[in-house]
Amino acid sequence: MRVLEKKDSMRFKKKILKILNNAKDASRVVAGVSTKNKNKALSAMAKALLKNSRYILLQNAKDISIAKKKGLSNAMIDRLMLTNKRIEEMAQAIKAVSGLKDPVGEVLRKWKRPNGLVIKKVRVPIGVVGIVYESRPNVTSDCAALCIKSGNACVLRGGSEAINSNLAIHRSIASGIEKFGIPREAIGMINVTDREAVEVMLEADEYIDLIIPRGGEGLIRHVAKNSTVPVVKHYKGVCHLYVDKFADLKKAGEIAFNAKVQRPGVCNAIENLLVHKDVAQKFLPGVARALEEADVELRGCEKTRKILGGIKAATDKDWYEEYLDLVLAIKVVANVEEAITFINKYGSSHSDAIVTKNKKAADKFLNNVDSSCVYLNASTRFTDGYQFGLGAEIGISTGKIHARGPMALEELCTYKYIVLGNGQIRQ
Amino acid sequence: MRVLEKKDSMRFKKKILKILNNAKDASRVVAGVSTKNKNKALSAMAKALLKNSRYILLQNAKDISIAKKKGLSNAMIDRLMLTNKRIEEMAQAIKAVSGLKDPVGEVLRKWKRPNGLVIKKVRVPIGVVGIVYESRPNVTSDCAALCIKSGNACVLRGGSEAINSNLAIHRSIASGIEKFGIPREAIGMINVTDREAVEVMLEADEYIDLIIPRGGEGLIRHVAKNSTVPVVKHYKGVCHLYVDKFADLKKAGEIAFNAKVQRPGVCNAIENLLVHKDVAQKFLPGVARALEEADVELRGCEKTRKILGGIKAATDKDWYEEYLDLVLAIKVVANVEEAITFINKYGSSHSDAIVTKNKKAADKFLNNVDSSCVYLNASTRFTDGYQFGLGAEIGISTGKIHARGPMALEELCTYKYIVLGNGQIRQ
Repeated sequence: MRVLEKKDSMRFKKKILKILNNAKDASRVVAGVSTKNKNKALSAMAKALLKNSRYILLQNAKDISIAKKKGLSNAMIDRLMLTNKRIEEMAQAIKAVSGLKDPVGEVLRKWKRPNGLVIKKVRVPIGVVGIVYESRPNVTSDCAALCIKSGNACVLRGGSEAINSNLAIHRSIASGIEKFGIPREAIGMINVTDREAVEVMLEADEYIDLIIPRGGEGLIRHVAKNSTVPVVKHYKGVCHLYVDKFADLKKAGEIAFNAKVQRPGVCNAIENLLVHKDVAQKFLPGVARALEEADVELRGCEKTRKILGGIKAATDKDWYEEYLDLVLAIKVVANVEEAITFINKYGSSHSDAIVTKNKKAADKFLNNVDSSCVYLNASTRFTDGYQFGLGAEIGISTGKIHARGPMALEELCTYKYIVLGNGQIRQ
Repeated sequence: MRVLEKKDSMRFKKKILKILNNAKDASRVVAGVSTKNKNKALSAMAKALLKNSRYILLQNAKDISIAKKKGLSNAMIDRLMLTNKRIEEMAQAIKAVSGLKDPVGEVLRKWKRPNGLVIKKVRVPIGVVGIVYESRPNVTSDCAALCIKSGNACVLRGGSEAINSNLAIHRSIASGIEKFGIPREAIGMINVTDREAVEVMLEADEYIDLIIPRGGEGLIRHVAKNSTVPVVKHYKGVCHLYVDKFADLKKAGEIAFNAKVQRPGVCNAIENLLVHKDVAQKFLPGVARALEEADVELRGCEKTRKILGGIKAATDKDWYEEYLDLVLAIKVVANVEEAITFINKYGSSHSDAIVTKNKKAADKFLNNVDSSCVYLNASTRFTDGYQFGLGAEIGISTGKIHARGPMALEELCTYKYIVLGNGQIRQ
């Protein structure tokens, strides 16, 4: 598959719709493939990645060279870069998916009506999942594996800066699946770097059942605004830790440190620390020292700055910010109610935690913080498919519709009602 | 609440956003109201409808008079018209909702991780549900009742032709709920007839968590195309009955008749009848006679017309059409595979049935027809919240994301993860 040049708009659109149409047709087939064959196909995908690693690295080198010429940042180039080790990790990730439980066909509920009708609510694949993503090439194989295992076809549309890497990965993983009854079109790839290709996908509700954007805030907002296809948003993580008046302050300090420092560049790390006014004086100096020793830049509200001294003021913009970095904003609050209101205003409905020994405060927090995952006395860093025991996830949903929190294999499915009768008609 | 005149655009938008913002604030309160108080509030809503019936009828008369002046069709005027009996039915419907099980707070799953974290997946309300609907004023009270019972706030935006009726119903039902701890803003109503009000709602993802359009195809397409808020579509019902080669033809005839004639104006009535070629000659004449005696107009494919004679030809447009009327299109197909392909192409993913005694054909059909509800040997007319035993529904979802088929109280909820720890940090 070569990179298409966008010559005339009609032909361009037609080519993309053809890929989508093929994926739709393929989705009807994948939905019925046995667990055994899906796992064999995943195994073949992993092997093909390793077998073609030299070719993939070669194609990746092209992307890297273009990126360097374009003057992309080192961080961007690092995200783009593949190595033998990274390709091995990608293969490992596919194998891990093959080890997960097949969600398809599970009877979620079954009951009998007084007229004898038997109703079964059965888990089935969604159909065609469109993935629109940015630079990391591993997303190509990760998402393809999750979609195949959950009986879906996928259509992948990676960033233009990774096009050669993505095409090479795609060619490798899609080549060996036909042997196991899965059409190669079930892993569709848009081989067009033009941005207009995304617009075609976003309006193709005839072919695509769900779009998952993976990337920065700009991409996600663009997709949500322009898509007629349903979107599950995996939005930023502005996560909070609230240290209550009745907290075990030693544990609170350990959790605050872990949630900020253990891996600051991920969405479930905290960005804002809220502290009850009655314990701020006792709690903040110690935790601040530990954080500063780990190179965390602290910013604070007025009260925090009085206690800590010498730290930068946090602006309103700070509270909304996903730093993804060693920066933490701290605010002293009057009570658990203020913490809840603050989190519901500035947070991103991702993961928020309270540390307290008081049941009333805990219940109030857990019930009223409107986030996907709410924690009592634990680090927000556990919001993760594997940490939850759900397996690999396609993202952490910050929306409320269809999927919330880690979106794993079950959430890549929907359900249908199968109604069994023996001639029933409605009176 | 008076009908707002749209004078200047900024002020107009601000007024609407104020209603939405109030609903968001109210949603945080409703989410925590006890089942007992929600049921009391529903009871008060039902009583208020009856108590204010004279006022509601008076306001309805205004709408009817305007509609007549505008020359609306008799069918439209009938949909708009309220009577004492209809108001009593609306009150009954609210009472029925109060009798349904409260879906909020149910622990869907609970498990313990090796590190001691206890994870609970708990059903919680969605938040604010926006309902955009057309002429029937009973939608106002039906949707408000379902949203309150499921712990949600709602924002209602009915059709301009029913504005006086809707405002009167709204004033009645929203007035008595505060006594039970539910802010009256939890039942929000857009008191602006201008179409621009809908556009403001569709972009208000800060305040509205889900939009449900209820009405014709045009409305639903418009909402799906322009909304940045997630939409659950309750789209048209182009439902099929397929009579297999191995069908009990007596049952098949009864089911065909029931699915078309018992109530032709609803979405779960069939529009297309598919018949296996080997039984067409035997099956069609009898069923056609019965249908024609019930004033059903038949349209057919070439083979059907050869068997039946004298009926109109069905065009490609016919197969896509939701007649909502005593019209049925008939096609002879070669096998179950052709039936499946046909339904997946022309159907609307609503409800489709097969009549057969053959297990293989049945399984193929039930697994491969990509619809919300698939039936074996029963009428499609059972796709209905009460018929399924789920209670009143807010609509029949023809989408695949979040809710499929009858969307009842449970589907008006989402879930959150509550994670209980004792100091766990991530290694």
